[in-house]
Amino acid sequence: MNEISNSTPRSSSESRAEMIEVVLPNDGNPLGNILGGRVMHLIDIAGAIAAHRHSRGPVVTASMDSVDFTHAIRVGQMVVLQSQITAAFRTSMEVKVDVYCEDYNTSRRLRTSTAYLTFVAIDAAGKPRPVPPLLVTTEAEKLLYQEACLRRQERLARHQRNKGPA
Amino acid sequence: MNEISNSTPRSSSESRAEMIEVVLPNDGNPLGNILGGRVMHLIDIAGAIAAHRHSRGPVVTASMDSVDFTHAIRVGQMVVLQSQITAAFRTSMEVKVDVYCEDYNTSRRLRTSTAYLTFVAIDAAGKPRPVPPLLVTTEAEKLLYQEACLRRQERLARHQRNKGPA
Amino acid sequence: MNEISNSTPRSSSESRAEMIEVVLPNDGNPLGNILGGRVMHLIDIAGAIAAHRHSRGPVVTASMDSVDFTHAIRVGQMVVLQSQITAAFRTSMEVKVDVYCEDYNTSRRLRTSTAYLTFVAIDAAGKPRPVPPLLVTTEAEKLLYQEACLRRQERLARHQRNKGPA
Amino acid sequence: MNEISNSTPRSSSESRAEMIEVVLPNDGNPLGNILGGRVMHLIDIAGAIAAHRHSRGPVVTASMDSVDFTHAIRVGQMVVLQSQITAAFRTSMEVKVDVYCEDYNTSRRLRTSTAYLTFVAIDAAGKPRPVPPLLVTTEAEKLLYQEACLRRQERLARHQRNKGPA
Amino acid sequence: MNEISNSTPRSSSESRAEMIEVVLPNDGNPLGNILGGRVMHLIDIAGAIAAHRHSRGPVVTASMDSVDFTHAIRVGQMVVLQSQITAAFRTSMEVKVDVYCEDYNTSRRLRTSTAYLTFVAIDAAGKPRPVPPLLVTTEAEKLLYQEACLRRQERLARHQRNKGPA
Amino acid sequence: MNEISNSTPRSSSESRAEMIEVVLPNDGNPLGNILGGRVMHLIDIAGAIAAHRHSRGPVVTASMDSVDFTHAIRVGQMVVLQSQITAAFRTSMEVKVDVYCEDYNTSRRLRTSTAYLTFVAIDAAGKPRPVPPLLVTTEAEKLLYQEACLRRQERLARHQRNKGPA
Repeated sequence: MNEISNSTPRSSSESRAEMIEVVLPNDGNPLGNILGGRVMHLIDIAGAIAAHRHSRGPVVTASMDSVDFTHAIRVGQMVVLQSQITAAFRTSMEVKVDVYCEDYNTSRRLRTSTAYLTFVAIDAAGKPRPVPPLLVTTEAEKLLYQEACLRRQERLARHQRNKGPA
Repeated sequence: MNEISNSTPRSSSESRAEMIEVVLPNDGNPLGNILGGRVMHLIDIAGAIAAHRHSRGPVVTASMDSVDFTHAIRVGQMVVLQSQITAAFRTSMEVKVDVYCEDYNTSRRLRTSTAYLTFVAIDAAGKPRPVPPLLVTTEAEKLLYQEACLRRQERLARHQRNKGPA
Repeated sequence: MNEISNSTPRSSSESRAEMIEVVLPNDGNPLGNILGGRVMHLIDIAGAIAAHRHSRGPVVTASMDSVDFTHAIRVGQMVVLQSQITAAFRTSMEVKVDVYCEDYNTSRRLRTSTAYLTFVAIDAAGKPRPVPPLLVTTEAEKLLYQEACLRRQERLARHQRNKGPA
Repeated sequence: MNEISNSTPRSSSESRAEMIEVVLPNDGNPLGNILGGRVMHLIDIAGAIAAHRHSRGPVVTASMDSVDFTHAIRVGQMVVLQSQITAAFRTSMEVKVDVYCEDYNTSRRLRTSTAYLTFVAIDAAGKPRPVPPLLVTTEAEKLLYQEACLRRQERLARHQRNKGPA
Repeated sequence: MNEISNSTPRSSSESRAEMIEVVLPNDGNPLGNILGGRVMHLIDIAGAIAAHRHSRGPVVTASMDSVDFTHAIRVGQMVVLQSQITAAFRTSMEVKVDVYCEDYNTSRRLRTSTAYLTFVAIDAAGKPRPVPPLLVTTEAEKLLYQEACLRRQERLARHQRNKGPA
Repeated sequence: MNEISNSTPRSSSESRAEMIEVVLPNDGNPLGNILGGRVMHLIDIAGAIAAHRHSRGPVVTASMDSVDFTHAIRVGQMVVLQSQITAAFRTSMEVKVDVYCEDYNTSRRLRTSTAYLTFVAIDAAGKPRPVPPLLVTTEAEKLLYQEACLRRQERLARHQRNKGPA
């Protein structure tokens, strides 16, 4: 039994996650660059962990907004992923995931992608279940939240278009 | 040595690809649904094969447009992915990937996602290299091509925004 | 409930399957050639998909006839597998699987192996269940079917020998 | 540098190999039985280790004779594979692989398959290289050797047929 | 039903296990040496198989004593692991695992690590269950058994320390 | 070229690492508990990342001290690993790795294991290379460092014993 009710607001720092993976030979193409699909796979896992923590139970991926791969990551390098909740709606959450390639010699991180995903919290029967509200206090959090709401409207409009007469 | 020059236009049917995968236990969450990230991984591979065939050499993923996961696919089911080139630019190509879940008993396919990816053709040194033009003849191909050009403008605008003062 | 009964004959084109795999570093030996065992693994999956589709339910591999590996397939190349039902008996099916290595520069396919496998359709309790008859109409289909029957007699004779006094 | 020349005859006991694998969830079908293709993959590895040891260098799989899967092996059970050289020719070797399922409670082994594979020894350039003769001394070894020669004739006849007018 | 009761003493030779693995690219670091963690993974599997056989049922790893990695094992080489029970207590067993790297050209084995693990036998509910006594007859077995008892005392003292005021 | 020399002392907070993994079906035994060997594999990776960061280049695992597995971690749960350098010697480093199982409903972490590993920094030729000194300032860091030196003496004594007449 949860001691904290699932309707108590929670801050994004409570569910924030960081993952590190070493790029293995099987993750790369014949030229030794990580496959875009492998990065997306890691983005989804990092995002799901934050959503899972915020909602205290299982989640499924509903969508990922467009994502760019601006720099090559090489086999043998480290990929660092940071995820945090930007907005919580009734049964869904938006999560931002930043992907970094970590340099061997300087230990500096270069951001290579940023992605926004939507996860839906589900119960054991696979039905959507309510998630806790997100505590938004700092200016940075408020900005992220407002942008998340705009992206949500775009997503809903996109769904509407795709359902049109075809 | 290629007998057909890389500047000879090629139709999308020459590079079209179909992949089938059986969803394994490690591909699923504890409730037995395939992870969104695993689907994205397969989408990227299916798209890369079409881009690879069209450009007759290695490619890297530059971006994936937003993608929705509208139906759950279960461990033990079959995922079918179909990919085809929709437009070829100087060194890049747009590829459309349709994802289907195949039903056991009726062998019918339910489309669960559609994604548009951009791949850049590269040479052995990792530099962009020219790709053959796409032969666009049927009305359906012309429509796909026009839509691809619109999506390309949106992507370029998105890049411009993300490079802005931050 | 199936709308088409499992006793309605079905043509091989309804269950035919095509799979594409990119050969990964872990699939190869230290010289960079795909392992024979990895090819057999893919052959079995491609064959099982066709048998699964024809019989509309789970199947198990009963046997694979002898198979030769005549050309090396390299890490980074594409393996294409095509499978089709050649004959359906009471609860078992013979499936033919052709393996091709696809060339990077010309997109031409070189056939590297052909295998014949027998699958048994099973129910949820693991017991054999009846499969639909195979619709054999073209001359090519009739030839494949006759050869399949000959191979079946050889298999039954082989089983008989292996059960003999030893 | 080898202290024992590669032309010194070697007995099969010097290269004999035994492998044990625990069947993992990803190795099985939705009903929890190991896939035939996974067994073939393990057969190839077990056979290659014996051929590798006998020839003291890399080998490639040339063919596998027909193989039957007579008993289901379950996820969580142990698969034991035993391989031994049955005959050595100029640059190739025949290897016999026995597959056993090991029972949890009684530790007894049930043989589920037997396979005969041919491996070709290759050098760093991928060209066939000579292998040591096989020392055949016991009656059992002589019988295995004679049978191996008969199987070899069948394989050569099979190759001849497949090269015929088609 | 077991024909031999689980209280009948059993010798270590009845449960002894040997495993062979070929080191794959994904098992290595960018310099081509097997990762220490991959070796530990294999040590645990080899140890668990011997404990599983001795106790005729499932086991869980309780601890591994300190282990050294004295020689590099390379991608493409073979790792051979030999495991045997050294002592059986009420519900737990100590297992010794020797790790060897096998040389390509001479087929000689170089021991690279030795590890001692403790496994607890569990029933279907996850509760510890009694294991058969170990039959100790040869001088070598008696020495191994005495050393195992000393290591056990060290482990119990270690647990006591770690539970102390901190 | 490094802007910070490899002889400049570095604090442990600069190389500290945190990893999160979701336990997959293939990581577990048939009862659904993670294998001890899989945990050791993750411990080694988490430790290697901290050592890699501190020494700004590749490392190999030299040893792992004894480790206990005190609580079962289940398939579907999250494993969190935290690693930090406790001492740096001439070419080697000791790293402490804490393993936690994270609870679904309360998001609380339960520590299940602690391990101490030694890594050696190597150059491209596989030879040991010097590592930066560790900056030890807080009382907690001093205690960790003193304990690390004691453990090092025990390891050297252990090596001495194992090299004795045998």
